[in-house]
Amino acid sequence: MRKLSLLFTLLISTVLMLAQEVRPVKNVIVMIPDGTSVGVYSASRWYKFYNKMGDRLHIDPFFTGTVTTHSSNAPIGDSAPTGSAYATGVLQKTSNVAIYPEADPENDLYPVDAARTYQPAATLLEAAKLLKNKAVGLVVTCEFPHATPADFSSHYHTRSAYKFIAPQMAYQNMDVMFGGGNSILTDDIRQHFKNNGTVLIQDDRNALLNYNGDGKVWALFGERALPYSIDRNPDNVPSLAEMTAKALDLLSKKEAGFFLMVEGSQVDWAAHANDAVGMITEYLDFDDAVGEVMKFAEKDGNTAVIIMSDHGNSGFTIGSRDCPGYDKLSIQQLFEAVSNYKLSANGIEAILINTKPENIKAEFKKYTGIDITEEELQTLLSSKNYKESDYTQVGTSNNMAHNIVNIMNSRTCFGFTTGGHTGEETLLASYHPQGDILRGNVRNVQVNKYLQKALGLDKSLQELSDEIFVKHTDVFAGQKYSVNRKDPEFPVLTVKKGRNTLEIKAFSSVGKLNGKPFDIGSVAVYMDKNDTFYLPKELVTKL
Amino acid sequence: MRKLSLLFTLLISTVLMLAQEVRPVKNVIVMIPDGTSVGVYSASRWYKFYNKMGDRLHIDPFFTGTVTTHSSNAPIGDSAPTGSAYATGVLQKTSNVAIYPEADPENDLYPVDAARTYQPAATLLEAAKLLKNKAVGLVVTCEFPHATPADFSSHYHTRSAYKFIAPQMAYQNMDVMFGGGNSILTDDIRQHFKNNGTVLIQDDRNALLNYNGDGKVWALFGERALPYSIDRNPDNVPSLAEMTAKALDLLSKKEAGFFLMVEGSQVDWAAHANDAVGMITEYLDFDDAVGEVMKFAEKDGNTAVIIMSDHGNSGFTIGSRDCPGYDKLSIQQLFEAVSNYKLSANGIEAILINTKPENIKAEFKKYTGIDITEEELQTLLSSKNYKESDYTQVGTSNNMAHNIVNIMNSRTCFGFTTGGHTGEETLLASYHPQGDILRGNVRNVQVNKYLQKALGLDKSLQELSDEIFVKHTDVFAGQKYSVNRKDPEFPVLTVKKGRNTLEIKAFSSVGKLNGKPFDIGSVAVYMDKNDTFYLPKELVTKL
Repeated sequence: MRKLSLLFTLLISTVLMLAQEVRPVKNVIVMIPDGTSVGVYSASRWYKFYNKMGDRLHIDPFFTGTVTTHSSNAPIGDSAPTGSAYATGVLQKTSNVAIYPEADPENDLYPVDAARTYQPAATLLEAAKLLKNKAVGLVVTCEFPHATPADFSSHYHTRSAYKFIAPQMAYQNMDVMFGGGNSILTDDIRQHFKNNGTVLIQDDRNALLNYNGDGKVWALFGERALPYSIDRNPDNVPSLAEMTAKALDLLSKKEAGFFLMVEGSQVDWAAHANDAVGMITEYLDFDDAVGEVMKFAEKDGNTAVIIMSDHGNSGFTIGSRDCPGYDKLSIQQLFEAVSNYKLSANGIEAILINTKPENIKAEFKKYTGIDITEEELQTLLSSKNYKESDYTQVGTSNNMAHNIVNIMNSRTCFGFTTGGHTGEETLLASYHPQGDILRGNVRNVQVNKYLQKALGLDKSLQELSDEIFVKHTDVFAGQKYSVNRKDPEFPVLTVKKGRNTLEIKAFSSVGKLNGKPFDIGSVAVYMDKNDTFYLPKELVTKL
Repeated sequence: MRKLSLLFTLLISTVLMLAQEVRPVKNVIVMIPDGTSVGVYSASRWYKFYNKMGDRLHIDPFFTGTVTTHSSNAPIGDSAPTGSAYATGVLQKTSNVAIYPEADPENDLYPVDAARTYQPAATLLEAAKLLKNKAVGLVVTCEFPHATPADFSSHYHTRSAYKFIAPQMAYQNMDVMFGGGNSILTDDIRQHFKNNGTVLIQDDRNALLNYNGDGKVWALFGERALPYSIDRNPDNVPSLAEMTAKALDLLSKKEAGFFLMVEGSQVDWAAHANDAVGMITEYLDFDDAVGEVMKFAEKDGNTAVIIMSDHGNSGFTIGSRDCPGYDKLSIQQLFEAVSNYKLSANGIEAILINTKPENIKAEFKKYTGIDITEEELQTLLSSKNYKESDYTQVGTSNNMAHNIVNIMNSRTCFGFTTGGHTGEETLLASYHPQGDILRGNVRNVQVNKYLQKALGLDKSLQELSDEIFVKHTDVFAGQKYSVNRKDPEFPVLTVKKGRNTLEIKAFSSVGKLNGKPFDIGSVAVYMDKNDTFYLPKELVTKL
């Protein structure tokens, strides 16, 4: 037994040494509960416990450490640079989506290469598709070009520029994109879906759940984001777990494996709103998706999974100085009130906003169990956005959802330090079929390096960036090129050589050679900041 | 290569399966940074980074998950029951120190066995000593009978009863006890140290660092707790790392191995005070001790280490709603102010309290870099405990330390939700020489079960409790016993049989048979609540 034990010791040492190499797997899944601070996991677990749903989260067995997340020049990041760091391994500035950032030498935490500023930084999703021929997909509950999904599938300096991000995502030719954002589709995107055979499912849960084809599928629900899980009509709007399970079904048909990113997009939004029941139920909705993913991964045996948030939010704690004696309260005293909340504050607002003043009290009670006071009623009635409010009173008042949150929080003992992001490390969970997990405290860019290894990439993301995102002035150096600015937001690069004319439209993957369309392999990104197209260097061979 | 890979896969599966059994090691070390919420690790890491001390904590490579900590009947615990859960594997109520708790059926989170109420629950330290003949020690920065060290080495329903806890710790005959609390020593304790050969070092750092004997050593610094690390005179008061290194030196001489608990006691206290620089520097002091322990463990190759806090505290975040725009600040903007604080708020108070009003501004600036406003000066001058304050103004004022903290925090962007404990899970770090680490989210009692396995105990702590903590009415059932209450707080149990008289004094490990002292092996615990002595059942054979 002693010898056996020694043998194992030696073997484990060897294995751990090899483990740092991370053996490649067929499928890689990244899951991001956006803006989820540690307290959200804890409160979600106690909420389950109190509501007799067990004392375990699906993620629980897989925690392995923490992630220090930050932008290139600040310890606290927003979702654009922090998600981009996971997607690309490149630290970047506030609002940047998967690009090399501007340098800010006074404040940069680690050196920034100013020579690369504005170059798109290739993502894991792009690398999986281009270098490993893997199927790729995104599943989210926000509108599709929101920061985190954008981080994995598009490139721009400003996250809010959906106009330039949405087409990049469409022209990315992803196998699966499930989320929100019907209103963001354009005629051009619809036409591209027809051209490349993407099935587009809109506001039709059954169509998604019954879809079983082999092609590319986009399924979108709602004009912008999906409703919060707790506000959702489950007959019409799928849960994140349902969308995730369907994505796994479809992607796992692909021989070369797949890369999938799943985001619980709205934990963050509920945290911004300090809406505790929203945070908890959004996390639990995400956690059910974790359950689906881990069931798949453990059965599949060739799938690695990394789960971590992109930053803290709201400083949410179980316990608050506004609630004297809270630290000795029973689970009932701490979790009964929040368990009685049947809708998010936004969900309640949507009802109360159309409720006559005399019915507000009863409706509030119906969805929260709370008997509001006369003073609270008056606050609700004077909400800035309440249609029947007395406009003489609403000058400096808040929106109704804000007032509703305040009432809900006054009945609990939860604490919040802010309505914004915070700088604490986030929890890391890791699964690898051969045990080559990511462990300890790691920096966000190290998560990316780990995932590059898990994908078994034969070149680095930076090398890929230098193949597919090269300045047009370099690609076509010495040649005759011009920029057609008939549509100033979507300029077209035109290159002429002999009888050949090559045209590349900004934010498209479809080029034209002598008027004939062809797939350029990746998306051409145009950066207005330096008036530059970033293109595959091989395009020069077309001429 | 493919075959080799498969071989490793199979081996790892086998290893992981075996790992759940946790192979026993020679030495087990538990480290507890008391009341350390996740944000403290993050802020400490950024503080190091900003002050050019690197971007890594010693604990970083070893994080493996999180711990759900709670008391028997509430989700939020104080250090007594939460530390006791680690020490004993028994959930217990607020204020309980290593006992089986009262049942509270309405609120108990898991079933509580009311038949055991008030029975002392054997600790890992006691088991290591009694069942494995290991050396045992505690290293802390609080006064020695404070909750966490008490949890591992004594038993009582009320943590504040130092009178009954301190003698238990002395009679525990520990090999090493380093910490604070000179004023708590009694003549009886001093006499016992003489009797059992314990060297007592008092307020003498050099004597501790130069000690190299083989016997038992207590080294105490200060009347109660040690000063905060940042306030400490390093020539007179050792750091936690120095005490820990010395403890490892001494304990590792013992052939049978050792059990050691190291507590960073005062992260918690600084958190209660919302003193950010105190929290950060107390954590870093603890982290240096982690560095010593991991250096030892990795070199030793036969030592397992578990590190985790006992509960959250203060809801500390990097970022606060009181600091608009904080989420885009540079590391300098976030960490310069706190890096200029050269003493804790308590440390500054100790100086200002004896400073003339006209010198307060300059002194404040000297230790914080802050130019206080006239209004802030007036607030300081009217502090309740300021000797020169105008007593007509101090009616409802705060102590000076509180006012100092407020000024310090107004120059930073840190947030706090409370001055008390909070209910978030705490970070877990784990090291085992053969890789049998504890991973994922675990409950506090599971940490204890893991440590029982790492110690290789041949009986459970509960079985041990039923051997050494048996009611005197059961041990001496049918015999003639009486309780001498000449000293009502330390009653003496007297049992007579034939010519023999056995006397057992409460909270002592020294019995008397016919007036002759003998070691009863463990400490006799007297519980006033049920007027019962808890004793080794073997004592009956003495008669």
